[in-house]
Amino acid sequence: MYRVVMIRHGQSEWNKKNLFTGWTDVDLTEQGIEEAKDAGRILRESDYSFDAAFASVLQRSIKTLHYALDELGLLWIPEEKSWKLNERHYGALQGLSKPETTEKYGEEQVHLWRRSLSVRPPLLEPGDNRLPGEDPRYAGLAPEELPAGESLQDTIRRVGEFWDERVVPMVKDGQHILIAAHGNTIRALIKFMEDLEEHELLDLNIPTGVPLVYELDDDAKPIRRFYLGHPEHVEKKKRQAADPDHDPD
Amino acid sequence: MYRVVMIRHGQSEWNKKNLFTGWTDVDLTEQGIEEAKDAGRILRESDYSFDAAFASVLQRSIKTLHYALDELGLLWIPEEKSWKLNERHYGALQGLSKPETTEKYGEEQVHLWRRSLSVRPPLLEPGDNRLPGEDPRYAGLAPEELPAGESLQDTIRRVGEFWDERVVPMVKDGQHILIAAHGNTIRALIKFMEDLEEHELLDLNIPTGVPLVYELDDDAKPIRRFYLGHPEHVEKKKRQAADPDHDPD
Repeated sequence: MYRVVMIRHGQSEWNKKNLFTGWTDVDLTEQGIEEAKDAGRILRESDYSFDAAFASVLQRSIKTLHYALDELGLLWIPEEKSWKLNERHYGALQGLSKPETTEKYGEEQVHLWRRSLSVRPPLLEPGDNRLPGEDPRYAGLAPEELPAGESLQDTIRRVGEFWDERVVPMVKDGQHILIAAHGNTIRALIKFMEDLEEHELLDLNIPTGVPLVYELDDDAKPIRRFYLGHPEHVEKKKRQAADPDHDPD
Repeated sequence: MYRVVMIRHGQSEWNKKNLFTGWTDVDLTEQGIEEAKDAGRILRESDYSFDAAFASVLQRSIKTLHYALDELGLLWIPEEKSWKLNERHYGALQGLSKPETTEKYGEEQVHLWRRSLSVRPPLLEPGDNRLPGEDPRYAGLAPEELPAGESLQDTIRRVGEFWDERVVPMVKDGQHILIAAHGNTIRALIKFMEDLEEHELLDLNIPTGVPLVYELDDDAKPIRRFYLGHPEHVEKKKRQAADPDHDPD
């Protein structure tokens, strides 16, 4: 049996301000740092170990990985960062206040933008400095890979590619893998692996700083998934994740 | 012209206690963290940027790299860790107090162990739990690669291999490289690249947390090296490095 563990990063500066973040590279808050350390401690206390680790190219995911690995005494394992694990690109919503956006467009529209499968946010226009094309970390991407705003379906495509190309070969090689990522990339991975119905996806909220364990069979197909940690802690973090005002996506 | 920058990690827990450290995986102190951030700030203020980074598999080097990259906004660049960048293995001296060792063996012997080219420290005996063979991070090494204690010459061999195999191809590919390492691995690299005389080596002390810049020609051979930062700061850090009581090796 193989195993992959995912951690959703905790509170970021923009979550604290309740702004849509997406690919904006904001830092973790002190609370976000504590959530990352918590994830590492839970893994250590449950005797988990890892052979390799992945993160997105956004610092809130990379730092979450480093704080967790530090708790595990595993900073030395190989680490790979990929834009394909980035949060869903939130297009023209990036930088907008969530309450103001809800007031302007209505709660239903915002919930669709945040939780539906195929609805894209308003896209960025050419010339917008929130487009990723000018950022050196995306210099190697083809123009058609650079998003101006993604639906969850768009995110699933790149996350699924990443899973098949980078993670599955290592899993089949017997390596235990740790992935630090974002709310919507983890939702995308779950949808990709389990083929959930859309209504199940709408209510799928990933708690922050709680290790999500996937047990996989010989073909790297999921057998089961569960959250690690004290049940009360897990339930509390799940309730927070279901509250849009607590959600760092 | 190519460029490689090296940073020696700052104060570790065992340096604070004045113990020989070598491959013992001790953490940075608060002062060591500040030295790492200083190195990052100096690089940022001098407009340095990097395409890839290296560290040893010891946390004081990895954390130094991460703190420096964080200051540079470059946590997202590829990072590789290798045991070949580890501090020189200090054999049976690891864990011993420097003042007590000096009292027992004399200042001259300790200076030879610390600064000469070919004198090995007393080696670890079979069964000693300071031997690296039981540590999973060295599981991939051949038995003849696992040191029981190294002379600087031994360290130069593995550091030189690492330079030729991993760094030079990236340098010739036009990539700017940042390496976070240890006092004796940086001394080893300098000796490897410049073929210094042994008497020059005895007085070669690497300041902590001060970026050491190597400019290289088209064959990745050194043109010149210099320390980056305010001259007074560099001089102060050099004086500290020459004082055995301040030296985190």
